[in-house]
Amino acid sequence: MISHVAFDADDTLWHSEGHYRAAHDAFEQILGAYIDLGNADVHAHLLAVERRNIQRFGYGAKGMTLSMVESAIAITDARVAASDIQRIVDLGHAVLEHPVELLPGISEAVAVIAKAFPLLLITKGDLFHQEAKIARSGLSAWFHRIEIVSEKDTSTYRRVLDEVGIAPEQFLMIGNSPKSDIQPVLDIGGNAVYMPYHVTWAMEADAGFGADSPRLRQVTQASEIAAAVASLAGSLGA
Amino acid sequence: MISHVAFDADDTLWHSEGHYRAAHDAFEQILGAYIDLGNADVHAHLLAVERRNIQRFGYGAKGMTLSMVESAIAITDARVAASDIQRIVDLGHAVLEHPVELLPGISEAVAVIAKAFPLLLITKGDLFHQEAKIARSGLSAWFHRIEIVSEKDTSTYRRVLDEVGIAPEQFLMIGNSPKSDIQPVLDIGGNAVYMPYHVTWAMEADAGFGADSPRLRQVTQASEIAAAVASLAGSLGA
Repeated sequence: MISHVAFDADDTLWHSEGHYRAAHDAFEQILGAYIDLGNADVHAHLLAVERRNIQRFGYGAKGMTLSMVESAIAITDARVAASDIQRIVDLGHAVLEHPVELLPGISEAVAVIAKAFPLLLITKGDLFHQEAKIARSGLSAWFHRIEIVSEKDTSTYRRVLDEVGIAPEQFLMIGNSPKSDIQPVLDIGGNAVYMPYHVTWAMEADAGFGADSPRLRQVTQASEIAAAVASLAGSLGA
Repeated sequence: MISHVAFDADDTLWHSEGHYRAAHDAFEQILGAYIDLGNADVHAHLLAVERRNIQRFGYGAKGMTLSMVESAIAITDARVAASDIQRIVDLGHAVLEHPVELLPGISEAVAVIAKAFPLLLITKGDLFHQEAKIARSGLSAWFHRIEIVSEKDTSTYRRVLDEVGIAPEQFLMIGNSPKSDIQPVLDIGGNAVYMPYHVTWAMEADAGFGADSPRLRQVTQASEIAAAVASLAGSLGA
């Protein structure tokens, strides 16, 4: 019944969230020259600014960087030096330029599943940065279709499935985010393999999901993905 | 022979460059408190920073804003106050939030051509911002397919035409940028209608195009588009 399988990208194919966390930590250290870090929750302030800006900036490193600049100015009552703002912008450059490190075993998992199903890559975030990472990953040739979208919700999945010409029950999504990869796909009647990543961005973490769905499997590492797909699809034989 | 017609978006369907120009002018005014504007070419400096960053940021208002912040710090030797950096970031917010104002007659042109051909919208830039503008424009229902791409070059056009399943000679592109809308389409053997906008971003301006191509028409306003398309397509009858 399953005819098409899709992978998420960030923290499913390659490490991502760790680079954002490192930027946040370095940001906090820069602000430590201006404020008592024991009395100020820099991460919470930044998250609040990011939440306020997300409807205008969307997801990705450029929006995060602009939110860090705004947070630094607000938290320091505009005392932050321009040279430190440049250091903050440089944190954004570093996130955009980091090498793509694949998760252990993911190349093999993608290759095995590609023999049985046409593969899609469905990722949200900054178009330019996501394209750069896909190119650097060396995995792009495995994917029949690459969709970089602004939000991964039920209407986005419905649109992509319509364009591919399949029904939700023919679709299986593999990813690390309950909110973006699992819940919306289960909600429209699709199948999902949930592979948690060891850290989750706060804005992705605030969603439960149908953990008891018969159309869901959970795995702990990439080497288990093929078996989970086979279990949902009946087999991995083409 | 022509089976599909595509429109560019910024400065073809709606005004865009003027908002960026206004941001650049306000940016220069902010810097006027720190430097002698008669002795410094702020626009040229910003353009140089944007050129340096384009391979990492891609196109769009968020990248422009980060480049303005970097330029302000560099031009002032890091003397720029944090409060003025916030004003610069606010210029980026304003560009992202500006209302969508359609070009005169463009609604009518789109409606007429949509009766004869399936329409595509092909635009480059920031995914999130472009989607927001398309939604605000009220024009999205006319388009069978909307492609927001990171670069409009020959390989992008070839990919889109492959996905649609047509040959270049069946394709006609309407737009204001010689570099992004006209030259690459003519280069692959497609047809184009060039409608210059009264201002062109410096980074779009550095390309000539085959002005004497039999597959090209030039118009001065939207009300002339339908006739230009008919002249290339043979007729506008379906």
